[in-house]
Amino acid sequence: MNTIRFHMPVEVIRREGALQEVGTRAAAFGKRCLILTGASSAQQNRALEDALTSLKAAGVEATVFPGISPNPTIAECRAAADAAEAAGAHSLLAIGGGSVMDAAKAVAWMSKHFIVDPEALFRGELKRDPMPLMVCGTTAGTGSEVSAVAVITDDHGKKRSVKSPRCYARIAFCDPRYTDTMPRSVTVSTALDALCHAVEGYLNPTCDALSSLFAEQALPLLTDGLAELCDTELPDKDGRDRLFDGALLAGAVLNTCGTAFPHPMGYVLTEDHGIPHGQACAVFLPALLDCAREAVPERYERMLGFCGGEERLRHILQTLTDVEVTMTDEQLAVYDRRFSSLPHYARVPGGFDGEQASALLRTLFAK
Amino acid sequence: MNTIRFHMPVEVIRREGALQEVGTRAAAFGKRCLILTGASSAQQNRALEDALTSLKAAGVEATVFPGISPNPTIAECRAAADAAEAAGAHSLLAIGGGSVMDAAKAVAWMSKHFIVDPEALFRGELKRDPMPLMVCGTTAGTGSEVSAVAVITDDHGKKRSVKSPRCYARIAFCDPRYTDTMPRSVTVSTALDALCHAVEGYLNPTCDALSSLFAEQALPLLTDGLAELCDTELPDKDGRDRLFDGALLAGAVLNTCGTAFPHPMGYVLTEDHGIPHGQACAVFLPALLDCAREAVPERYERMLGFCGGEERLRHILQTLTDVEVTMTDEQLAVYDRRFSSLPHYARVPGGFDGEQASALLRTLFAK
Repeated sequence: MNTIRFHMPVEVIRREGALQEVGTRAAAFGKRCLILTGASSAQQNRALEDALTSLKAAGVEATVFPGISPNPTIAECRAAADAAEAAGAHSLLAIGGGSVMDAAKAVAWMSKHFIVDPEALFRGELKRDPMPLMVCGTTAGTGSEVSAVAVITDDHGKKRSVKSPRCYARIAFCDPRYTDTMPRSVTVSTALDALCHAVEGYLNPTCDALSSLFAEQALPLLTDGLAELCDTELPDKDGRDRLFDGALLAGAVLNTCGTAFPHPMGYVLTEDHGIPHGQACAVFLPALLDCAREAVPERYERMLGFCGGEERLRHILQTLTDVEVTMTDEQLAVYDRRFSSLPHYARVPGGFDGEQASALLRTLFAK
Repeated sequence: MNTIRFHMPVEVIRREGALQEVGTRAAAFGKRCLILTGASSAQQNRALEDALTSLKAAGVEATVFPGISPNPTIAECRAAADAAEAAGAHSLLAIGGGSVMDAAKAVAWMSKHFIVDPEALFRGELKRDPMPLMVCGTTAGTGSEVSAVAVITDDHGKKRSVKSPRCYARIAFCDPRYTDTMPRSVTVSTALDALCHAVEGYLNPTCDALSSLFAEQALPLLTDGLAELCDTELPDKDGRDRLFDGALLAGAVLNTCGTAFPHPMGYVLTEDHGIPHGQACAVFLPALLDCAREAVPERYERMLGFCGGEERLRHILQTLTDVEVTMTDEQLAVYDRRFSSLPHYARVPGGFDGEQASALLRTLFAK
C-alpha cells in the first residue's frame, strides 16, 4: 500500500431491524429527539413507525418535522433548526434519502450555532460540535449516511456543498427493507448515483488501496443490481440488498475520494431542468469512462473487470439514463462560466478543463 | 451482506512522513502536548525527533514522558497522567508499540477523570471525553492504533482490558519506516500478534462481510511477511511494508471481532513466564486452527486460501513460535480457575470451554 487516508467515524449498524436500537441510543443523548423526514416515504416504508416505537419504549419524546423537499434549501433547514429548538431536542434522527440526511446535517449544525450566516455554513466554519445526528437512509444511492458532506440549495437556487469533519452522523441505522417501497424511478436514479460514486472515486488518481477495496466490492453489487433493472421493473429482495450494500460501500468511496465532473455538472440538470440527481450525474459518466480509457487504460480495465465488462457497463448507462434536455445558448453561456474551473477536474484521470466541459455540454444538450 | 457493525472513528494517515502533520493537528487541540514513549525505540527510529520538529514548527510546546514499560501498569499510567497535568497538556501523543499506545489511552482517560479508581477504568465507566490522543505506532502488530481497547496490568500483576468507544485515538500517524529498526525478536513477535488478530477475528462466527474483507487483505500480507522471516533474519523494505499494512488491517478486524482463546491464554505466558505477547498468543493458534477445521471446514479452507495453504501457515507457526515453558501443578491449578469460563470462548468456531483450556495447557506446558 502507499498513502492511505481513512476517516469515517460513523457507527454503522447494518441489519434488518437496525432501528430497534434507535431508542436506547437516542436516550443516551437526551430525552427529546427531533425526527426529520421527507414528504411521505418514511410512512410508506414504515421506518418512521419503527423509530417511534423504539423511541417510545426507551422513554424518548419524539417530534416529527416532515416534508423536507428533494433538494433541500437553506430556508427549510433553518425552519427545522427552529423546530429542534422549540422541541428542546437533544438529538436529531433523519429518516429518508440523501436530501433528508443532508438537510439534517445542516440542521444539526444550525441548532448549535444560533445565528447562522449561510455562507459560514458553506465555508465549513463549524466551531462547536453539532447536535448529535442519527440517520436511517431509505434509498440506496446517496452515501450520505457515511459522508461528511451535505448538499444544500442556497438562497439563489444553486446546489452547494457543506463539508466538515464535524458533519458526520453519529450512528447510521442501515436496513435495506426500507428500500422495498421505492418506485422504479427512484430505484434507478439512486442506484445510478451510487454507481457514479464508485466509478468517479475509483478513477480518481488519488484513490488509495482501502478505497479501491471498497469500490471493488461496490461495483459488482451495483452493476449486478442495475443490470437486473435493465430487464425487470423492480429488483427482488436480493437485488434490493445488493443495491443497498453497494450504495453504502460506494458512499465510503465518495467520502474519501470525492467526485469528478459528472457530479457538479449534473447539478445544473437538476437545478434548471428537473432531472433527478442520479440520472443527472450518470449522463456524464460515459465521458468520464472515455477519459479513463485514454489516460489510465490499466486501471480502467481493472475497473471493468468488477463491472462485468465495458459492454455491460455502457449498456446499463445507455438503457437506464434517460435524460431528454435541450439547453439554450444563454444557458450554455452561463454553464460555461460556472464550469470554467472546478476542483473536481483534478480528480479526472488525465485531467479535464472548462473547454472540455463546454464541448461536452454541447455534444449532449445543444439544440 | 448480512449484519454489519462497523465503528472505527480514528483518522488514519498512512504515508511516509505522516508525522510531519502532527504539529498542525496538535495545535488544533491546544498549545501543549505530552509525548509518551517507551524506553528508547522512539529515539532509535527517529519518530520522536520527527514529532518534535513538527510540533516545534507549529508552535506546540512538547514535554516527553519516556520509559513506558512493555506491559504498562496502572501505576505508570497514573504517573504519566500526573505529568500531563503538570505540563498543562492539551493533547497526548503516543509514540511506540502497543504498550505505549495502550498506556496512553488510559492516561488520556485519567487526565480527564481526576480521581480514578482503577476498577472504574476496567469497567469502562468513562463519563467525559478523554484528553485528545494521537498515536504513532512503531511496531507492526498491536492494532492499538485503530482499536478502542487498552490492555493494562493491574495492581495485582494481571493483564486486563479497558474498553470504551471513547478510548479511540483521534488520529493515527502510520509510517512503516519507523519499524525498520525493530530487532528480529520484536519483528517476529509483533507480526505473530497481528496474525493472531486476523485469524482469531476471521474465524469468529460473528465476523461480518466488512471485517472479512479486511482480514482477507491482511492475511496474505502477514503470511508473506512471516514466511520471509522463516528464511531471513530481517525483512526488506517491501517486507516491512507488508507486515505494517497487514497489522493495521488486522487491527481493524480485532477491533470489530475481538479475540478467541489464544489472546487471553497468552496473557499468563507473558505475566508469569516472560514470553513476548505475540509469541504467547501464537503458541495457542494451532489449537484454534484445529477447532476451525473441525467446526467450520469451508470457512477454514477459505481462510487458508489467503494464507498460502495449511502447510505454509502451520510451518510459519512452528518455525517462529519459540515458547519453552514448563508449568507447575500449582500454576496449572491457578490457570484452570482463571480460564474456567471466558467470554472469548463464544468467539471460537464450534465453541470452547474451561476443560478444553485445561487440557490444552497440559498438552503444551505440563512437566
